[in-house]
Amino acid sequence: MKEIPRWSEKDVTRTLPHRNQEGHKGSFGTALLIAGSAGMPGAAVLATYAAMRSGLGKLTVATSSESIVAISSFVPEATFETDLLDRINDSQLDFNQYSAVAVGPGLLPDYKTEAAIDRLLPEGKPMVLDAGALSPRSYDSAAAPVILTPHMGEFSRITGVSVEELQKGQAAYAADWANRLGVTIVLKGPGTVIAFPDGETFINPTGNSSLAKGGTGDTLTGMILGMLCCHDNWRHAVLNAVHIHGACADEWIRTRSPHSLLAHDLTELLPVVMNSFEK
Amino acid sequence: MKEIPRWSEKDVTRTLPHRNQEGHKGSFGTALLIAGSAGMPGAAVLATYAAMRSGLGKLTVATSSESIVAISSFVPEATFETDLLDRINDSQLDFNQYSAVAVGPGLLPDYKTEAAIDRLLPEGKPMVLDAGALSPRSYDSAAAPVILTPHMGEFSRITGVSVEELQKGQAAYAADWANRLGVTIVLKGPGTVIAFPDGETFINPTGNSSLAKGGTGDTLTGMILGMLCCHDNWRHAVLNAVHIHGACADEWIRTRSPHSLLAHDLTELLPVVMNSFEK
Amino acid sequence: MKEIPRWSEKDVTRTLPHRNQEGHKGSFGTALLIAGSAGMPGAAVLATYAAMRSGLGKLTVATSSESIVAISSFVPEATFETDLLDRINDSQLDFNQYSAVAVGPGLLPDYKTEAAIDRLLPEGKPMVLDAGALSPRSYDSAAAPVILTPHMGEFSRITGVSVEELQKGQAAYAADWANRLGVTIVLKGPGTVIAFPDGETFINPTGNSSLAKGGTGDTLTGMILGMLCCHDNWRHAVLNAVHIHGACADEWIRTRSPHSLLAHDLTELLPVVMNSFEK
Amino acid sequence: MKEIPRWSEKDVTRTLPHRNQEGHKGSFGTALLIAGSAGMPGAAVLATYAAMRSGLGKLTVATSSESIVAISSFVPEATFETDLLDRINDSQLDFNQYSAVAVGPGLLPDYKTEAAIDRLLPEGKPMVLDAGALSPRSYDSAAAPVILTPHMGEFSRITGVSVEELQKGQAAYAADWANRLGVTIVLKGPGTVIAFPDGETFINPTGNSSLAKGGTGDTLTGMILGMLCCHDNWRHAVLNAVHIHGACADEWIRTRSPHSLLAHDLTELLPVVMNSFEK
Ligand SMILES: Nc1ncnc2c1ncn2[C@@H]1O[C@H](COP(=O)(O)O)[C@@H](O)[C@H]1O
Ligand SMILES: Nc1ncnc2c1ncn2[C@@H]1O[C@H](COP(=O)(O)O)[C@@H](O)[C@H]1O
Ligand SMILES: Nc1ncnc2c1ncn2[C@@H]1O[C@H](COP(=O)(O)O)[C@@H](O)[C@H]1O
Ligand SMILES: Nc1ncnc2c1ncn2[C@@H]1O[C@H](COP(=O)(O)O)[C@@H](O)[C@H]1O
Ligand SMILES: [Mg+2]
Ligand SMILES: [Mg+2]
Ligand SMILES: [Mg+2]
Ligand SMILES: [Mg+2]
Repeated sequence: MKEIPRWSEKDVTRTLPHRNQEGHKGSFGTALLIAGSAGMPGAAVLATYAAMRSGLGKLTVATSSESIVAISSFVPEATFETDLLDRINDSQLDFNQYSAVAVGPGLLPDYKTEAAIDRLLPEGKPMVLDAGALSPRSYDSAAAPVILTPHMGEFSRITGVSVEELQKGQAAYAADWANRLGVTIVLKGPGTVIAFPDGETFINPTGNSSLAKGGTGDTLTGMILGMLCCHDNWRHAVLNAVHIHGACADEWIRTRSPHSLLAHDLTELLPVVMNSFEK
Repeated sequence: MKEIPRWSEKDVTRTLPHRNQEGHKGSFGTALLIAGSAGMPGAAVLATYAAMRSGLGKLTVATSSESIVAISSFVPEATFETDLLDRINDSQLDFNQYSAVAVGPGLLPDYKTEAAIDRLLPEGKPMVLDAGALSPRSYDSAAAPVILTPHMGEFSRITGVSVEELQKGQAAYAADWANRLGVTIVLKGPGTVIAFPDGETFINPTGNSSLAKGGTGDTLTGMILGMLCCHDNWRHAVLNAVHIHGACADEWIRTRSPHSLLAHDLTELLPVVMNSFEK
Repeated sequence: MKEIPRWSEKDVTRTLPHRNQEGHKGSFGTALLIAGSAGMPGAAVLATYAAMRSGLGKLTVATSSESIVAISSFVPEATFETDLLDRINDSQLDFNQYSAVAVGPGLLPDYKTEAAIDRLLPEGKPMVLDAGALSPRSYDSAAAPVILTPHMGEFSRITGVSVEELQKGQAAYAADWANRLGVTIVLKGPGTVIAFPDGETFINPTGNSSLAKGGTGDTLTGMILGMLCCHDNWRHAVLNAVHIHGACADEWIRTRSPHSLLAHDLTELLPVVMNSFEK
Repeated sequence: MKEIPRWSEKDVTRTLPHRNQEGHKGSFGTALLIAGSAGMPGAAVLATYAAMRSGLGKLTVATSSESIVAISSFVPEATFETDLLDRINDSQLDFNQYSAVAVGPGLLPDYKTEAAIDRLLPEGKPMVLDAGALSPRSYDSAAAPVILTPHMGEFSRITGVSVEELQKGQAAYAADWANRLGVTIVLKGPGTVIAFPDGETFINPTGNSSLAKGGTGDTLTGMILGMLCCHDNWRHAVLNAVHIHGACADEWIRTRSPHSLLAHDLTELLPVVMNSFEK
């Protein structure tokens, strides 16, 4: 495999959209986030917070009741769709208002989660699938880009290939499975690989070990979801979200211990870090 | 239509009230906010937070139970009137203690919301109607200034005129309908129009696209409510709230990305931004 | 009446206790706060937050369930006594562990509140009574200093004297009633009067109109409670709390609008403001 | 007894682990925290917050429902094991995934707490026992290091020796009982003693009287738990946590009053304070 290009700081600066002065919240897209359960309510908080700081216009969250109270005092800007997973096959449900969807942070990989994905894939909206939404399956019914964001353990669960084997050639495996499944694979870790279904592949140059803590993946999912809403080019959205997520962690360790980062700190740094790419 | 004047920084500086050194919380007015529902609890948090930083003396919030917990940990200064919408036609209810009322953020435009407006209009208190409180109706029973704060979609819902048609002459349409309905119309967007019922009309010169995100309108409603309580001149209250709301967003983008603003950030910037008009 | 002395910055500096290096949380006293109800849960949050930053060792809060969740995410350092008002006449209840008690913020002046005061007065603990705990009554059963913290409206309720009449001579009325009732009266407002039962009376020189907003009194009650726990001289505790509370507001308006202060901002400024008296 | 060595700033700098650049959250260990009850929900918030900023990879919290909502809005990075104390003897429960366990903050020393300890001691995971988990008992079934973190009152409860007697020779008593019980004893107070079961004993040189307030012990428990997960040497983890906990308090009083520290302020200072040992 020839050397894989890095999606650099310059690439981000070049492709990060200017926010249209004439736009209103409708112009920047409404996102749907399905996340959070009784044992993992915080994942929904983290993804919501990150999404809402990443350029979207509006966000609707389908989540558990614990998460609703927690989100409302952390990110009061979010709105909720109650009991969505229970009504997912209701033919009245209309997903047309959404520009992008993310499923999985804080969810279990159970039949409800799978049913939601089945229902949503043919809707023609870019979809991010993470955590509980990462299971072995086909994406043939997808009518728009699908982005999977597994870490190595989840990539092994999706592919059935052992972690040891995968580690022998992460980028090659990511590219291969992106092609096979017809999806984009963001294979997370030090040197995250972004493999598009047509074979185009990038390595992310940012990030550090402060990210190795529960919750940072939920924050990334939120950032990708938000970026999908404000980018015309969905590939740039994914690449820029991954790059900037890591850049926030790099900003953190300039003055703080890598042992002490919390995922929501990334989102707190986002306004200033994103601004540094806009100059 | 001749050129519409802008309500400038100088106008704000000239008209923003000094806080009377001898006043107590009663002197600065008690506001009533009716906002927030199960699917939109955060709107009540945002409006409460903004109102309480905008000069009022006291605030009572009528809202859903999810919102009560969230508000109490975000703005513990607020107090609550429980189940007000269910008791709105109770003749025992006394609205005399209130100096101003706002209805709508996070409410659905349903019969309960309409019943509350019907009940409150004759009470003779300045009223801000936003979001779920914006429906086609008459304001003949109003015994005090009514301020509607629609964005273009809501303005279309109120007037029955299509958004495309409205866009041909926003200021003219706002002025026309302010006159017809006998209310003040704050037609929100880039270059917000403030049209008073007697024909006086202004354009707001502040704000930017960072505001194009869910929740910023709820924050504006709170700011108008708070300003109504501490201004003698209710028109100045409306104009100053709109101007300062935009000025907070302008302060944000001096060092932060416009993609990343959250509505409550505006309120966090308010103390320093408002101070800049007081020098 | 001869000129009333001011409790000055120098007096605070002179009397604010050094924190004993060898002390543990038990050495600095455990306070009991009875505050907060369904319609006013935030008052308990504010008083808790202020008390815990004002020098005490431990705090137990008896409050409503809404307040418990809100306090726990705002001041996780507090602990709770559940349903205390319902069990107040239970002879098993032991108040010996407490060094000081405050009752009233966010409570209604109802029979439960009165029953709690009746039960607590003979316990021999310094008590702060505020808001819902301020009603006309005798303090003959009190076995330790009682501090009432009324604003003018509450002072009128306690005394039966009209606000207009009281305004003719606030300090004289405060001193008179402090003597009659055998309690300390902190008559709040611009130029707060502190009148001790033996006739000693002071005027507080700090504070400004930013304090004229709901919640600042709850914060003051918390500060007095906390200071009572760490001062040997309870009079100094009261005087210093009132002075420093106002000094926090004075610090606020150095760079921020007086219209925008929230009561919990005072407590956020407290660590640095209190430090300025310790140099 | 000969002079007891101090665990100095240099010792921390020397032994604080670098965060492995190639690690993922699994590499840094998953901790289990059993903490928080209806009357003390905040203790779980404090320990969770501290643990998650102290180097671990993931954290699971077993706690009361009040704590779940509060934690989720304070530290959304945490996940939960619901009703663990009720299921503690369920043979299906698998503790293998955990690298370290802490029990006690905000718990009562009741039979449920004891049952949890009985069940966990033989699991072979380093365990921190604090607060409600500190009772007289044997640790013979322990299959890994056990760390007790009593203050003097709790040390007296464990040992049956009176506080007065213990104060005659704190270090000697700590060393003696560490040896007798075969556990590490962190005897907290000014000059905290850390006594290992083999006789090695240290004095902590950091900390000050600002720590004499409810909650700071819960924060310490969280820090030890987090440090256990990212240190290879568990003794260094304990010593470094105690030292850094005190160093955060020392940083606080450089510019703020010792009367006003809250336990969660320590954790907020942790990222910068920990960084100062990493230069
Ligand atoms: N050692 C590391 N260096 C750089 N990035 C990392 C490292 N460990 C984890 N990450 C990132 O942290 C996030 C973890 O996601 P998750 O495992 O889903 O919580 C991903 O964005 C990873 O790329
Ligand atoms: N592109 C924009 N430029 C300036 N202000 C905007 C823009 N988009 C939205 N706003 C403001 O943001 C708020 C949106 O309110 P709402 O639509 O009710 O949430 C209003 O105050 C608008 O004036
Ligand atoms: N105009 C003012 N100047 C100075 N202090 C004030 C003013 N208005 C209110 N306060 C203080 O704010 C607090 C109000 O308490 P309360 O009325 O119980 O909320 C008291 O500490 C008053 O002394
Ligand atoms: N006077 C003091 N000087 C230094 N550290 C103290 C002092 N008082 C308490 N501490 C520390 O504060 C924490 C109190 O724990 P706990 O009593 O469990 O809340 C322990 O880490 C003690 O070592
Ligand atoms: Mg993940
Ligand atoms: Mg709106
Ligand atoms: Mg009051
Ligand atoms: Mg303790």
